[in-house]
Amino acid sequence: MSGTLAERILATMREVEDFPEPGVTFKDITPVLADGGLLAEAVRAHADPYRGQVDLVAGLEARGFIFGAAVALHLGVGFLPVRKAGKLPGPTVGVDYDLEYGSSRVEVHAGDLPDGARVLVVDDVLATGGTAAAACRLVKQCGGTVVAVEVLTEIVALGGRALLEGRTVRSLTSV
Amino acid sequence: MSGTLAERILATMREVEDFPEPGVTFKDITPVLADGGLLAEAVRAHADPYRGQVDLVAGLEARGFIFGAAVALHLGVGFLPVRKAGKLPGPTVGVDYDLEYGSSRVEVHAGDLPDGARVLVVDDVLATGGTAAAACRLVKQCGGTVVAVEVLTEIVALGGRALLEGRTVRSLTSV
Repeated sequence: MSGTLAERILATMREVEDFPEPGVTFKDITPVLADGGLLAEAVRAHADPYRGQVDLVAGLEARGFIFGAAVALHLGVGFLPVRKAGKLPGPTVGVDYDLEYGSSRVEVHAGDLPDGARVLVVDDVLATGGTAAAACRLVKQCGGTVVAVEVLTEIVALGGRALLEGRTVRSLTSV
Repeated sequence: MSGTLAERILATMREVEDFPEPGVTFKDITPVLADGGLLAEAVRAHADPYRGQVDLVAGLEARGFIFGAAVALHLGVGFLPVRKAGKLPGPTVGVDYDLEYGSSRVEVHAGDLPDGARVLVVDDVLATGGTAAAACRLVKQCGGTVVAVEVLTEIVALGGRALLEGRTVRSLTSV
């Protein structure tokens, strides 16, 4: 397949209508993961601007674990899983945030985020931005600094960047 | 920290009592993830024996996504998320399996596993082996071949290898 990395990622992603609920078009990134060459290129594109500038990569459960862990490996730094409430066994620190209907919570093991750590936040899709914004607040609350938020794709119409105002947000593609 | 890789992983893991329920001692691998050097060494140990011998790495939701994606990147192959029921948007193939109480189901996007693909199955902990065994059946059902099952740690007393009889199962550590 020819074209820029963004064009090839967009051509490989799959749109699934009415998932997870009627009227929603879901951006399925699993075909990008299945392509080893494209996966490696995407990971390098996420990671290379930050070489030597981050101490830890935070990935958002669950698909953010995939790109996040690979980016951490590529940069030679550690990985911090940002999990949904109740999943981490040790003492956690958490941040609650609002969803369209109801609320949710993200948590990390407090002890796994050293004070002053420079953190790159990674997820697959930036939609409303709620989870990413909560993860950034959580990193700050633990004494870390968010260097940037990296996502594979951004659903521009949902305006997620508004919740991340003042932060560096980079998406490899946008739809 | 000195010692073999296994000794250093074991010394870094954390035991959490009474999680997820009273009487269970949970092996928390997040301190291993947080250590970039140890994470990279563990990923290389998982991956290097299979260089040129696998087409796809399958990671089991959710913690298996972390090591699995990093192993896929290291080997330069694609990544297949093996997810819990209802999480994948596209047409799926699934396998049901029994838990101690009740049952569960693992699913993949059928189209993301090419016929004849050689698959390395990766997870963090081998406990009863139910999920890993179901994932292996699922790979086979989709026309793939399981090259091996790789786990960071194996809880020997739970006897998970019995469910994986006849397969190559490698654990970097055992407890």
